[in-house]
Amino acid sequence: MSDPATAPLLTRESVQAAHKLIEPYIHKTPVLTNSTITRLASTPRTPAELEGTEWAGRTPARPVMRLWFKCENLQRIGAFKARGAFHAIERLKQQPGWLEGGGREKGVVTHSSGNHAQALALAAQVNSIPAHIVMPTISSPVKIAAVRDTYGASIIFSGPTAPEREAVTASVIARTGAVLVPPYDHHDIVLGQGTMGLELQDQVSSHNKKLNAILTGCGGGGMLSGVALSCENTGIRVFGAEPSFEGADDAKRSFYSGQRITSVKSLTIADGLRTPVGAIPWSIIYERKLVSGMYSVTEKEIKAALRLVYERMKMVVEPSAVVGLATCLYNEDFRAMVEQEAGEDGWDIGLVFSGGNVSLEALGKLFES
Amino acid sequence: MSDPATAPLLTRESVQAAHKLIEPYIHKTPVLTNSTITRLASTPRTPAELEGTEWAGRTPARPVMRLWFKCENLQRIGAFKARGAFHAIERLKQQPGWLEGGGREKGVVTHSSGNHAQALALAAQVNSIPAHIVMPTISSPVKIAAVRDTYGASIIFSGPTAPEREAVTASVIARTGAVLVPPYDHHDIVLGQGTMGLELQDQVSSHNKKLNAILTGCGGGGMLSGVALSCENTGIRVFGAEPSFEGADDAKRSFYSGQRITSVKSLTIADGLRTPVGAIPWSIIYERKLVSGMYSVTEKEIKAALRLVYERMKMVVEPSAVVGLATCLYNEDFRAMVEQEAGEDGWDIGLVFSGGNVSLEALGKLFES
Repeated sequence: MSDPATAPLLTRESVQAAHKLIEPYIHKTPVLTNSTITRLASTPRTPAELEGTEWAGRTPARPVMRLWFKCENLQRIGAFKARGAFHAIERLKQQPGWLEGGGREKGVVTHSSGNHAQALALAAQVNSIPAHIVMPTISSPVKIAAVRDTYGASIIFSGPTAPEREAVTASVIARTGAVLVPPYDHHDIVLGQGTMGLELQDQVSSHNKKLNAILTGCGGGGMLSGVALSCENTGIRVFGAEPSFEGADDAKRSFYSGQRITSVKSLTIADGLRTPVGAIPWSIIYERKLVSGMYSVTEKEIKAALRLVYERMKMVVEPSAVVGLATCLYNEDFRAMVEQEAGEDGWDIGLVFSGGNVSLEALGKLFES
Repeated sequence: MSDPATAPLLTRESVQAAHKLIEPYIHKTPVLTNSTITRLASTPRTPAELEGTEWAGRTPARPVMRLWFKCENLQRIGAFKARGAFHAIERLKQQPGWLEGGGREKGVVTHSSGNHAQALALAAQVNSIPAHIVMPTISSPVKIAAVRDTYGASIIFSGPTAPEREAVTASVIARTGAVLVPPYDHHDIVLGQGTMGLELQDQVSSHNKKLNAILTGCGGGGMLSGVALSCENTGIRVFGAEPSFEGADDAKRSFYSGQRITSVKSLTIADGLRTPVGAIPWSIIYERKLVSGMYSVTEKEIKAALRLVYERMKMVVEPSAVVGLATCLYNEDFRAMVEQEAGEDGWDIGLVFSGGNVSLEALGKLFES
């Protein structure tokens, strides 16, 4: 990872610079609309639908929303994480002394069994740099095969707990001299993920429309904080969405208490959002107030949104990818806020399909009758 | 349905005329490519992979293919059938005496529980014409709801056998004066489906490439014969693909015996391709020799192709939509033919994702571990 002492400022301009660096390597993913889903989001829920929820008895909100979907499920490796990983590698290549010190031979290392592992493995492979990926022994064979066989990374197995994988990672660094590229809690990763926000703004502008807001999921917070930077001083408001299951809404709880929660143990189906929010993302989201609000949704709401995307948009997305859409459709606090802020004109809202890496077996289990 | 006496000739020009008629009503669906799948199709299979197949022991073919996917799963109602249905209605509106005879009030009728039912219901609804859909009582509640609630058609239930549903259809016609719009065996339907072939040719040309061949699935044969008409005198060769399971490869067997098979009883997972090929499609496919060859694939091969499309393209397609892709990837007869005909230059091959209407439950069942 590039030296924090030479790290770029966390600003919109730095996101633009990151975009220039990674443009040759990433896909400019398409932005889609869907009239059925936009109509649903702009239809008040019935009182019956609110029964059994925390909004039972409340008058359903009447927001007007026009939804724009940034399809990062069509990004390289099937998720936005390719942006941060390519940016981290580009920044390493620019770092004084890294190449000269044999950095290209020593390589990079991370611990992840998810999309960040594939993203770093790909970015390293494209640059002919070795990648060492620390994975829990319990990782699925499909994920191991993708990282090793498709992207040619070395896999080092560890136990499942954080101390175990950190110890293994430290030993890899000691042995190889590889540079650690963490999944979200780093300037270069945050700036890389933020590039999707710039593209989304541009792509909506090309339809002669202007976004009023962007709503993204929040796990470690790399995407949310990066997108927030990309919207700085544009007038576009940024919101975060999380699963509520088993306390996975740590960033929301942190946001409204002012105290960052640093440990989460949730098995939400939105498995990309099980991690607690990182310190650098938090400084952008909360301390700099670049995020205007946090919302959460239930497992049932995530599944309902997932079903709509499959059935109506014919797009394969992972559960984590639809927490923003679920918020627009089902969270009455968010919907009432949009109604109040946007009035009859409504809002153009950008949402991110953050990834599409879900196994057909897992999908089958999710929807078995 | 429009009067056969005034039916247009079955020519490429008539497909072009059909396209003009339906353009305001249909989506010009995108054409996608995928480098991973194209690379796979152009990689020889291993001898081990051929074991247990009819090609065991044969030297694997070395074809070069560049694949272009026409995404009719993103068509209105989620399948290409919207093309034929809108064309049938437009032609009815032009038919002398139909409007004057109260045709718009009498409406249209068909028997189908699949994509044609939704397509006709939508085309009728858009034109403010009543649609009567005869469906077996055993149809899934989801399909019944789509046709009735989403597209506002009247559902009339029948027994599951052909004579039962034909009797019910006849009684609807007697009662209402509605015009029958069959799912494939009619000039207007064939010409409507053929319009996808024109678009595909145009869209590939816009990349400064020229298709050498188009390969589509074949159930009743409306799509295959329509696409064949769209390729007449263009030099583009047209091929058909079917599931082999339980004799669903009726059109292939008919094609190579010269005798059209008129009855099929197969429960192939490619449920859109369970029907025998119709007389009018057959006249184009076989008698006029506008189709150059027919191929078939196994259930396992269909599932493998389906998995690739979900995992690599992140597209929701129904099993019937990938028989063409499965043929390119796994049918050694087809692959050897391409190798021989195309040589080292290879072929640009158009494939059609014909539909995306698969329930998540059915998908789950298909891929349960």
